[in-house]
Amino acid sequence: MVGLIAMSEKAPKFELLFNPGSLALIGASANPYKWGAIILSHIINGGFKGKIYPVNPREKEIQGLTAYPSVAALPEVPDLAVVVIPPSSVPAVLEDCGRKGIKAGVIVTAGFAEVGADGEKLEQEMVRIARREGMILVGPNCFGIISTACKLFSIMPPLFSLPGPFGIISQSGNVASSIASKLISKDLGISKLISSGNEADLHCEDYLEYLAGDKDTKIILSYIEGFRDGRRFLEVAKRVTPIKPIVMLKAGYTAAGARAAKSHTAALAGSDVVFASACKQAGIIRVRDMDELFNVGTALLCLPLPRGKRVAILTAGGGWGVLGADACASAGLNVARLSEETMAELNAILPSWWSHGNPVDMVAGVFQEDVMKTVEVLLRCTTVDSLMLLNLVPALPQNIVFGANKSSLSGEAVRTLDDALSEVLARLAALVNKHHKPIILAWEFGFELIDARLREVAYQKGIPCYPLPDHATAVLSSLARYAEYRANLNPASSPQA
Amino acid sequence: MVGLIAMSEKAPKFELLFNPGSLALIGASANPYKWGAIILSHIINGGFKGKIYPVNPREKEIQGLTAYPSVAALPEVPDLAVVVIPPSSVPAVLEDCGRKGIKAGVIVTAGFAEVGADGEKLEQEMVRIARREGMILVGPNCFGIISTACKLFSIMPPLFSLPGPFGIISQSGNVASSIASKLISKDLGISKLISSGNEADLHCEDYLEYLAGDKDTKIILSYIEGFRDGRRFLEVAKRVTPIKPIVMLKAGYTAAGARAAKSHTAALAGSDVVFASACKQAGIIRVRDMDELFNVGTALLCLPLPRGKRVAILTAGGGWGVLGADACASAGLNVARLSEETMAELNAILPSWWSHGNPVDMVAGVFQEDVMKTVEVLLRCTTVDSLMLLNLVPALPQNIVFGANKSSLSGEAVRTLDDALSEVLARLAALVNKHHKPIILAWEFGFELIDARLREVAYQKGIPCYPLPDHATAVLSSLARYAEYRANLNPASSPQA
Repeated sequence: MVGLIAMSEKAPKFELLFNPGSLALIGASANPYKWGAIILSHIINGGFKGKIYPVNPREKEIQGLTAYPSVAALPEVPDLAVVVIPPSSVPAVLEDCGRKGIKAGVIVTAGFAEVGADGEKLEQEMVRIARREGMILVGPNCFGIISTACKLFSIMPPLFSLPGPFGIISQSGNVASSIASKLISKDLGISKLISSGNEADLHCEDYLEYLAGDKDTKIILSYIEGFRDGRRFLEVAKRVTPIKPIVMLKAGYTAAGARAAKSHTAALAGSDVVFASACKQAGIIRVRDMDELFNVGTALLCLPLPRGKRVAILTAGGGWGVLGADACASAGLNVARLSEETMAELNAILPSWWSHGNPVDMVAGVFQEDVMKTVEVLLRCTTVDSLMLLNLVPALPQNIVFGANKSSLSGEAVRTLDDALSEVLARLAALVNKHHKPIILAWEFGFELIDARLREVAYQKGIPCYPLPDHATAVLSSLARYAEYRANLNPASSPQA
Repeated sequence: MVGLIAMSEKAPKFELLFNPGSLALIGASANPYKWGAIILSHIINGGFKGKIYPVNPREKEIQGLTAYPSVAALPEVPDLAVVVIPPSSVPAVLEDCGRKGIKAGVIVTAGFAEVGADGEKLEQEMVRIARREGMILVGPNCFGIISTACKLFSIMPPLFSLPGPFGIISQSGNVASSIASKLISKDLGISKLISSGNEADLHCEDYLEYLAGDKDTKIILSYIEGFRDGRRFLEVAKRVTPIKPIVMLKAGYTAAGARAAKSHTAALAGSDVVFASACKQAGIIRVRDMDELFNVGTALLCLPLPRGKRVAILTAGGGWGVLGADACASAGLNVARLSEETMAELNAILPSWWSHGNPVDMVAGVFQEDVMKTVEVLLRCTTVDSLMLLNLVPALPQNIVFGANKSSLSGEAVRTLDDALSEVLARLAALVNKHHKPIILAWEFGFELIDARLREVAYQKGIPCYPLPDHATAVLSSLARYAEYRANLNPASSPQA
């Protein structure tokens, strides 16, 4: 622990953003297809407890709420303004907000720096007004924000998340939406979600700093196209990662991607080499794609950090063992060399034709209890930091295995499968807790709907389950590198080689 | 087309292997948990039309069939012997087979070269006997073979595939099983499946040569750990790829993987640089993992080959567009520069705030018919070879989109979703056929069960659907490189730059 994050002078205004007692939706609409109607309905349906003031000069009432013709006409000073009006009207409305005394705004409207020189000028004007009036702004060109603590869902997509440990910062609204959807689908909760858009005023490093101090946020997931202030980002990230992990997907890492980023959020993607080095210096967990962002984020939640890079691979098929070993080496992990004690213990459990090494190939003829014993022997091994399990079939009752085809999906068969999976996965989770070493399952039955059940149950039990060894080793490698970074900050608990 | 594959002298014996009129299962068992019982039940339940002779000295009848005490006692000379007995007994049984006049064998038994020097010696003895007796052998240390043309399922896992275009060669039985399961789950058929194991006698290049001439096989999927005769493999592959694509996953590409391969199938993984060069020379489509093997194989089945590497990216979210552009560049593809005509046509369809370039970001406000028009304009563009579609939501009726959450999974909602998806995907497939350019969908709703439906429907309609742009570009890149290889063999139809 390196001490608490020092709060900037903006901190009290962030409270207005994420815990507002009242908000004005400027551009609220009676046309149900307009963003100003959709966002309003999400604020209402999400259960926001504060006052909601729709602002629209042509309506008296919208979705059952009294509408106000202007910001000036509002009966109180709302803590937050959410702005969904055409770009050319934004500066004037911000002047109104400033006069009213509003100190925090979310500018959903697009059509600023991302569309060229005129938009860039408009954006600069907007920022100039906001800073003069002492306002902080999210956006423009974004989907909005979520803060589950106060049930604030001022956001374009219908993402009614439960409260939970994930803080999300995304320069893309659609990517924010994809991340949130996946979390919601697994009943995993969100603390705050910020679709940060063009980041004209507030930058990702401001949100990072805020989330570091936010007690509801345990893990930060981030999609970034470019940095406005790389130096400050690095400095903030260095202070955050000893307290909370930052998992980051950086887009625009190719020339083609960087060009696309420029026209998307006006971001300058910058050198990928510089970014890679920044991640290493600051202990940011960089991921390659959206799956990995989700996989690493959720693994940080349910698994202990491995003490090193030495992986035991347990398989019931040699081919998968080879692919598992390749995946370890490719991800910078080591295929653990098993201790003599462990080899002796395995010889006592496994049939004589087992692989006599790591990957531990049980081949055929090892079932249920003996699989669990093997798992525990490997977790106990002093030269093993984590376990990758490549086939769950031997651990299941034999009648389940051979019934796993398309026609067995209905009612009873699904319940039998679910029960069997639940029991095995709960036992694996208990072994993780007992030995403080992560287990990741890399396996699929091959049938979409059955595999969907498998992954659901696995998440419920706290054992991540991915289709391929490469997914598992990417996660184990990320976790091991993050553990090593933190241990190096605090050499008393240094990881093993 | 480079002419038909010249058949080796082994060709007639391959007919005994894959179209036997009768077979002996040596080591058939009455104990339902033994491999000799499981394989027998699969041969029977698979509907094999020829005669089946279980051989077991201790039984009179097994699974309703008369059992014979020895090979010598069989009432006729079976075309094929499938051997599932302990390794030390295999040489003697092969002597019996030779004396009887059997010319083809599948040695399922493990415990040969993969377990060390003694096993290596036993394996050499086995091969010596087989060659002396003029027999060809599959295995040892394998799961068996499938030949759907004669309903032969002499295989360990219950893989009752329909007949179809995929020929599978796998040095790992478990990997063969994983590939087959995925195909079966999509109602995609298999011609032949060979779990080739240690390849003591027949090598992967022999199977390759056979499948090249097999009229039922259109696409060859292969998992390889190492080559026994790299030179001959290369020479055969060069003759096969102008006729049929070979998609290959080569394991053991790291030192750790190569060590695991040695103990799995006694394979020498060899230099990865040499293998990469061989793939390039021979037009083999090399893939990185099991998902890609499946994705490329199925895409070859349903999509036309792109004429070049220029990809149009259609998105309804800028972030996904940036990730799509990165994925293109990373996979060696080009983000297409759209023609002036195409830009003008897009300006007429899309709202003024569209991205005005590729990736084509429709942003918000483009729905159903206009999405389809946009797709067609992009496919018509002379500088576009393929289309990657990153969000299906705008193409769907609006009531579907916002109902897509967990609680909408039951009955009516699933049917509504299926109908909407079916209609849109069928229209996309019609556009692929009309313009002879591939479309790949890279997208997911984020909800396991809904996404499982999406992928099912997409496969049924012939439009591949993957979760991430990276998956789509890996496939498009593989297809483009294969098209280029074939065009270079036949310069009349050379692909564009």
